[in-house]
Amino acid sequence: MVNQKLYHGAAYYPELWDEKTIEEDIKLMKEAGINVARIGEFAWSQMEPAEGDINLTFFEEMINKLYENGIDTVMCTPTPTPPIWLSHGHPERMYVESDGTVMGHGSRQHVCTNNRYFRERAAIITEQIAQALGNLPGLIGWQIDNEFKCHVAECMCETCKELWHEWLQQRYGTIEQLNEAWGTQIWSEYYHSFEQVPQPGPAPFLHNSSLKTMYQIFSTEKIAEFADEQAGIIRKHSAAPITHNSTVFFSVDNERLFKNLDFASFDTYATSDSYQNYLFNCDLWRNLKKGQSFWIMETSTSYSASLESYATPHPNGYLAAEAVASYALGGQAFCYWLWRQQKAGCEQPHGSVISAWGKPTVGYQNVLEVEKARKEIEGIITDSIPLQAEAAITYSDRAKIFLKTEPHKNLNYRDLITDFYKQVLNSGIHRDLLPEGGNLDGYKLLFTPFVHYLSQDYLQKAKEFVDQGGVWIVGPITGGRTEHHTIHTDAALGMELEDYAGVETLYTFPIENTGSVGEAFNCSAPLGLWSSVFEPKNAVSVGTISGGLTPGKSFLTEHEQGKGKIVMLGSLPMGKEGEKLLQELILKYASDAGINRRTDVSEGTIVAPREKDGREIWVMVNMDGQGGRVSLPQKAVDILTKEEVPQGELKLERYEYRIIQF
Amino acid sequence: MVNQKLYHGAAYYPELWDEKTIEEDIKLMKEAGINVARIGEFAWSQMEPAEGDINLTFFEEMINKLYENGIDTVMCTPTPTPPIWLSHGHPERMYVESDGTVMGHGSRQHVCTNNRYFRERAAIITEQIAQALGNLPGLIGWQIDNEFKCHVAECMCETCKELWHEWLQQRYGTIEQLNEAWGTQIWSEYYHSFEQVPQPGPAPFLHNSSLKTMYQIFSTEKIAEFADEQAGIIRKHSAAPITHNSTVFFSVDNERLFKNLDFASFDTYATSDSYQNYLFNCDLWRNLKKGQSFWIMETSTSYSASLESYATPHPNGYLAAEAVASYALGGQAFCYWLWRQQKAGCEQPHGSVISAWGKPTVGYQNVLEVEKARKEIEGIITDSIPLQAEAAITYSDRAKIFLKTEPHKNLNYRDLITDFYKQVLNSGIHRDLLPEGGNLDGYKLLFTPFVHYLSQDYLQKAKEFVDQGGVWIVGPITGGRTEHHTIHTDAALGMELEDYAGVETLYTFPIENTGSVGEAFNCSAPLGLWSSVFEPKNAVSVGTISGGLTPGKSFLTEHEQGKGKIVMLGSLPMGKEGEKLLQELILKYASDAGINRRTDVSEGTIVAPREKDGREIWVMVNMDGQGGRVSLPQKAVDILTKEEVPQGELKLERYEYRIIQF
Amino acid sequence: MVNQKLYHGAAYYPELWDEKTIEEDIKLMKEAGINVARIGEFAWSQMEPAEGDINLTFFEEMINKLYENGIDTVMCTPTPTPPIWLSHGHPERMYVESDGTVMGHGSRQHVCTNNRYFRERAAIITEQIAQALGNLPGLIGWQIDNEFKCHVAECMCETCKELWHEWLQQRYGTIEQLNEAWGTQIWSEYYHSFEQVPQPGPAPFLHNSSLKTMYQIFSTEKIAEFADEQAGIIRKHSAAPITHNSTVFFSVDNERLFKNLDFASFDTYATSDSYQNYLFNCDLWRNLKKGQSFWIMETSTSYSASLESYATPHPNGYLAAEAVASYALGGQAFCYWLWRQQKAGCEQPHGSVISAWGKPTVGYQNVLEVEKARKEIEGIITDSIPLQAEAAITYSDRAKIFLKTEPHKNLNYRDLITDFYKQVLNSGIHRDLLPEGGNLDGYKLLFTPFVHYLSQDYLQKAKEFVDQGGVWIVGPITGGRTEHHTIHTDAALGMELEDYAGVETLYTFPIENTGSVGEAFNCSAPLGLWSSVFEPKNAVSVGTISGGLTPGKSFLTEHEQGKGKIVMLGSLPMGKEGEKLLQELILKYASDAGINRRTDVSEGTIVAPREKDGREIWVMVNMDGQGGRVSLPQKAVDILTKEEVPQGELKLERYEYRIIQF
Repeated sequence: MVNQKLYHGAAYYPELWDEKTIEEDIKLMKEAGINVARIGEFAWSQMEPAEGDINLTFFEEMINKLYENGIDTVMCTPTPTPPIWLSHGHPERMYVESDGTVMGHGSRQHVCTNNRYFRERAAIITEQIAQALGNLPGLIGWQIDNEFKCHVAECMCETCKELWHEWLQQRYGTIEQLNEAWGTQIWSEYYHSFEQVPQPGPAPFLHNSSLKTMYQIFSTEKIAEFADEQAGIIRKHSAAPITHNSTVFFSVDNERLFKNLDFASFDTYATSDSYQNYLFNCDLWRNLKKGQSFWIMETSTSYSASLESYATPHPNGYLAAEAVASYALGGQAFCYWLWRQQKAGCEQPHGSVISAWGKPTVGYQNVLEVEKARKEIEGIITDSIPLQAEAAITYSDRAKIFLKTEPHKNLNYRDLITDFYKQVLNSGIHRDLLPEGGNLDGYKLLFTPFVHYLSQDYLQKAKEFVDQGGVWIVGPITGGRTEHHTIHTDAALGMELEDYAGVETLYTFPIENTGSVGEAFNCSAPLGLWSSVFEPKNAVSVGTISGGLTPGKSFLTEHEQGKGKIVMLGSLPMGKEGEKLLQELILKYASDAGINRRTDVSEGTIVAPREKDGREIWVMVNMDGQGGRVSLPQKAVDILTKEEVPQGELKLERYEYRIIQF
Repeated sequence: MVNQKLYHGAAYYPELWDEKTIEEDIKLMKEAGINVARIGEFAWSQMEPAEGDINLTFFEEMINKLYENGIDTVMCTPTPTPPIWLSHGHPERMYVESDGTVMGHGSRQHVCTNNRYFRERAAIITEQIAQALGNLPGLIGWQIDNEFKCHVAECMCETCKELWHEWLQQRYGTIEQLNEAWGTQIWSEYYHSFEQVPQPGPAPFLHNSSLKTMYQIFSTEKIAEFADEQAGIIRKHSAAPITHNSTVFFSVDNERLFKNLDFASFDTYATSDSYQNYLFNCDLWRNLKKGQSFWIMETSTSYSASLESYATPHPNGYLAAEAVASYALGGQAFCYWLWRQQKAGCEQPHGSVISAWGKPTVGYQNVLEVEKARKEIEGIITDSIPLQAEAAITYSDRAKIFLKTEPHKNLNYRDLITDFYKQVLNSGIHRDLLPEGGNLDGYKLLFTPFVHYLSQDYLQKAKEFVDQGGVWIVGPITGGRTEHHTIHTDAALGMELEDYAGVETLYTFPIENTGSVGEAFNCSAPLGLWSSVFEPKNAVSVGTISGGLTPGKSFLTEHEQGKGKIVMLGSLPMGKEGEKLLQELILKYASDAGINRRTDVSEGTIVAPREKDGREIWVMVNMDGQGGRVSLPQKAVDILTKEEVPQGELKLERYEYRIIQF
Repeated sequence: MVNQKLYHGAAYYPELWDEKTIEEDIKLMKEAGINVARIGEFAWSQMEPAEGDINLTFFEEMINKLYENGIDTVMCTPTPTPPIWLSHGHPERMYVESDGTVMGHGSRQHVCTNNRYFRERAAIITEQIAQALGNLPGLIGWQIDNEFKCHVAECMCETCKELWHEWLQQRYGTIEQLNEAWGTQIWSEYYHSFEQVPQPGPAPFLHNSSLKTMYQIFSTEKIAEFADEQAGIIRKHSAAPITHNSTVFFSVDNERLFKNLDFASFDTYATSDSYQNYLFNCDLWRNLKKGQSFWIMETSTSYSASLESYATPHPNGYLAAEAVASYALGGQAFCYWLWRQQKAGCEQPHGSVISAWGKPTVGYQNVLEVEKARKEIEGIITDSIPLQAEAAITYSDRAKIFLKTEPHKNLNYRDLITDFYKQVLNSGIHRDLLPEGGNLDGYKLLFTPFVHYLSQDYLQKAKEFVDQGGVWIVGPITGGRTEHHTIHTDAALGMELEDYAGVETLYTFPIENTGSVGEAFNCSAPLGLWSSVFEPKNAVSVGTISGGLTPGKSFLTEHEQGKGKIVMLGSLPMGKEGEKLLQELILKYASDAGINRRTDVSEGTIVAPREKDGREIWVMVNMDGQGGRVSLPQKAVDILTKEEVPQGELKLERYEYRIIQF
């Protein structure tokens, strides 16, 4: 992928329109500044109307035609929507819900991706596509399938049952080791053979935590293996880089899924009032394939919708702010779903660039603003690189799985981690959301909240990070479960972590509504969530509990190890006071860690730091539509206007962006 | 049916009681003034306890006995409750839910009405009933089945699947034409044969809109065909007129259902605080079989109830207000469900005239009041006819289907159309709710709100109506979908409508929460719902949008065509201000249309205009229990007291009715 | 069971831990004062890993080891968790939900307890356990299975279908009698043979009330028969008394279930803010096996939890208050669930005495407080007996069944009866919750609220009670249904009751929101619930309705019969005013009944009266943590401190208990 370019794109479905409309679309794309189209992900029935009857001429011509008009193409494999000849009369190939409901044809993802016949046909169509289109000059990238597991989660079909048993055998070796690891003597679950291990279907009450967690991990590995398989086929015939279009919502492990892919891309439909979720995505996906620019493969020009729902449209001005923020935060492409409004199907009402009748939509003017901004900043962005943050927050889809199995009381990982992220965002500290397996080089401060199970790999990496000078903040909820989703039997959070942190965890219990108040940094806040209460051993208590069941005990400790420090955060301070306490906590340990990359910026406005030839560039964007201000530590130059900007407060208007260089 | 009589009736289940109780019931009916009984709709197991073992003597004697006591009978076919010999051991005959659940015996409507064996047995029992009872002197009418599709909606059984494929073949001819019409290349839905088209069962996400809408239309046509078939059988043996007992809640197309029936009847269980829903029904069903009086086949004496729910009982006085209002608005019968409280089953708690132990219920005194009023007004009502309204609001069960497929955000047609109706009701304008296919002769003002799909028939009729001087108000939500539930590709609302209305629809989008305010008639109100924003071409903008995404554009236009006017209402003004704006809109276009039939009447009180020998009669009823007032444009005579009533304000007490003649 | 001892126990799962941990556990149990362990209820897979391969040595040694350490054992049969060899590959043995969903292995109660193969295997394992362990010196009692029907309710499997038909045949003799009793001509439900009577599975609307109620009664009888069978097997080999661990939540008829068992036990996880529910249990279970002490077989040391939920932990001090209250109110044992926190499975987070890593939990100090209190009061408690109350409130699981079939509007029996109980509790009157079949000897005042169906047995007993001087308060909701869950046809509440009460029930209807106000004892309160409105015949109206539909009629009557009085309460006074009216009502009739056992005690504090050698002992406990006061009618002696306590007000601190003797 050429990094000397910023892409402004759209999903396009030429297979649904006649030739004349396609001609018009290309003309209109050029007018709107669209320079990349993503095509093909639902077109299996057009490519292969009957089994084996494959014809890809239409797409070959389409890619060439786009290319002739200056528009590049990301080509998709069409596997999310298997045609009727594959599904009709074959319930055994279909996705099965946990209650046993078998999917029918229609909608998407109705076929189980583990079904062998599906895999056979998917391999054939993918190979043919790669052969036919893989070396066209307009083809700049590949997308495998689309939004894996967006509508479905863990399939319960017979094929999956067999694979599940194989997978367990590979993981545990003998059934006795599985029984031991899962503690299956409980409730007489005990199995004599892998064939007896059920899928987590209907039961009178909850299944064993190990069973539920492992079935999710199994499912995420299997879907990643499908992606691996598809990528392998494509690579035999094409050198173009490969991605998938994912999100943090879906039932996948993105880190594993993208491991063997070439670049990261995602979709986001956050509304303007939750712009932080948008930023969350940029700060995460930049780090999923580190060093590679990410793509926003889908976002709305104004609003998402289906037959049964719709989102509030973006205010005018917001779309360009989104685009600039994403480019500045490491994005290479900003693509809409979709170019021309669907005339049929269940997404007819979804916002688009052009209406089904070929006219500009309510979002169109904003698309033009994006294009104007893209042109204006393209040189600056492609000429510089995003600065790595000094603070990292671990993001883990495995943690999401553990919390799905054990949500305490309706907790979900995404809300928890997003709220935590907002606290760091609001502190003005430049931050990376770093996948669980991410390299800690260059970081000074590491947050690890909401990770029930801390792997040995992670633990060793984090300890080394601390030994070498880092500050590691562990918790809340982190560390209390083993690999198999059971409880530690040596210490509440495992002896290794407690020893290293210099604490004994006295109790773990649901602290909310017990009158327990956390006192730290001259703040007081009620404590919430399932919490760990500490007795410092070698550590120092920094936060004390008053009231409740454990007055005088600690919910927050710090302990110097090597050149660094480990901080145990056993509980979550709640409410406005809690946010204040967390802000103090973040700033204190950012200071301890020697963090420099922090800006004095008003809430709702962001600073995206980049670097060119050793000089720092700040892209500043007002995201909340309220306008904002940034304190400049020294004078700088506005690269867009070439004017000097003095030290001190710089103001931004509603959705305005500015780019300065120091 | 003799129009020289007003009926006061009750549903009666003599098959559930012994002879002595039946004797007592007849005596009590006479005391209460009951002059018609509806019987038989659930009695299949009594009539035909074993397959082929049919004996109708009991019902023959029953009808004769009632007749001897001055009580007429409406006889029902007993098909809503097939006996155990028809259902037991035959899952293939049963109704199947969309999730695949197969119904068992018990309750009602458990058998699929499209099942061939059911149809065979239904034809036999119906024919025998018609033969045995069809010419009894007491039999004055027939009711086919009861409350079609009140508990169930679209069946998913194998029989329905076959019929569905046949129906599609008849509608679309070739599968290619269906593919084209539904746009099935989307998501690779594409079918090679009609046999492949699924029923809209379990799928990972929403089905294609065309599939969902067509399956509903298919289902409503099939149930209507069953009614046709039943009616045909009855007519071979009986001259008595035929009806069905329906509502606007059920999953039927009432216009189609009643097409081949003789008169309209319905049930209503609105509580007193939603008396407008009661009036809605009267204003609709009067027009379903125009020129024919309607029947209220079921209503509660006080409250409806089942094992699991109950409604608030009517205040004393309300029941007679209901009865007088219905007689005045075109009803011929006011019948209770039910005469004697059930002693068994799931409706034991339901309100009735007489308790299970043979005593007056809490509603009984109100029943006597109804009878007193009926006697008092019978001559006046039977001697006059309801005046046709000048204003019509289109009611469409097809529109209900489209909105069920595409509810935007939990919209349902019934709430929308009822709220719109209330606005017209509150304006004091006499109004008809007119079925989609209704004749527009004699109307001056036509409202067409919430009709996603405007048929060619309707469009031509409405254009002719405008050309000849009518004022047609189109919207909100009207016109944006094709016959197949897809999006127009020539213009947002179809080129024909936009051309005729002299507008271009710039955008359609969900306007709520975007800060868009509608300004018209010196009113301002926030705009809501999925909206159309207009650029007037030949039309004039009457309502302008301020704020939001499209400031300065129009949400309300008018355009003179021929002798009339077409008004496009692109959005729904919301809240109290919205109601004010709508009131102004209604009054303005009523005035433009030259509407005369409008009364200055306080909210909660109604005026039902009737005519006798060219002189106007007003039946006035206070419906809200607060008392009210009506301004009389000139002096009149109270026909009940024979006293003169002066011009000016006339007051009504709580639930009082008055009848005057000018 | 030795009554000279108070037990302090815990559920223990040694089969899940290694030998070293078990040694440590026993040591820790002794430190905490645990003197009884309940074991074995989920250990079937450990006892019989493969079919027929039974080895009970582990449990034999375990019981002996505990005994050697001063810890007695309650041994359980392990039938709630059938092993995989019993369930795998046998869907026909599994529990089936009412929607047809078949359970899989995992969780508990997944196998249908009526399945014949299950019963065969259950009998074998139970017999072997009884033989092997039944005469061990440490074994002091048996628990059959565990928490019958806690996760499941009525099974719909084929075995249950057959048994259902047999049961119906036994109950009704001929199908015609069933048809008659259930009124099945309604909706053509009518059956020709018992085989045709469905289980209450999927249907378009509600099933017949008789069907639903009878299926529940069938189910509760079947599970009790299983308990009988188990008990019979055990008794062949062991003299130790037998119980089950139940609650009022589960889908069982506790009175029937415990009929053939030896003592009553239950679990309770009420949080401290609903301490009244805790007391409700003590006041009920004391009377389920009258004259026998009850056991609290499970309660939490601090909080209950599972993967998906948790309760608020107890405040410190509350646990000992619970323990003292239960011992004082007739309990012999206070046992925790569980001793050592689970390390695996779905109840990992549940509170315990010792954590999974072998350390005291947050509840541990409270356990020590319980032990201190137990030791302090053991002599006093074992040396005295609880005083029978003079006031009884009928508790009926059959009434629960009727209300489950017919909940009016989301009513549930448990909330209704608990709220009613709280009114009596707050009056300071010592009270028994008496099972429906309980003996009325010694009572003076009887409340029978929320019992839809009054059996002949009950009615005769209650009339005799009145004749001999008792005051019987009937209602609300009581008496309106027959044995078959149909409506009476002689009088609203049945002629026998109405005659005896000297009233005619004019109407029964849902009175709420009709503006009906109850006036009695100088109180006024809005009336609610489905109500009976009376015309006094021989009775006197004590409470009059104003407003609403029946002004001037009575909702409360009294009538002297024999030496006593029957009071009809037709409606429930609502809100704060309603509580006040009910308080007046309770006190008035307590006074009429000559009740002496009433204490002037502040809300949140209780007095448990006991007796020793004719002298009264009061155990007073503050339950709400607010402290409280009790008025002593005369001076007494504090048996714990031996100090005299003067007449008049005695104060208790937060969660304090005092024991005095007069």
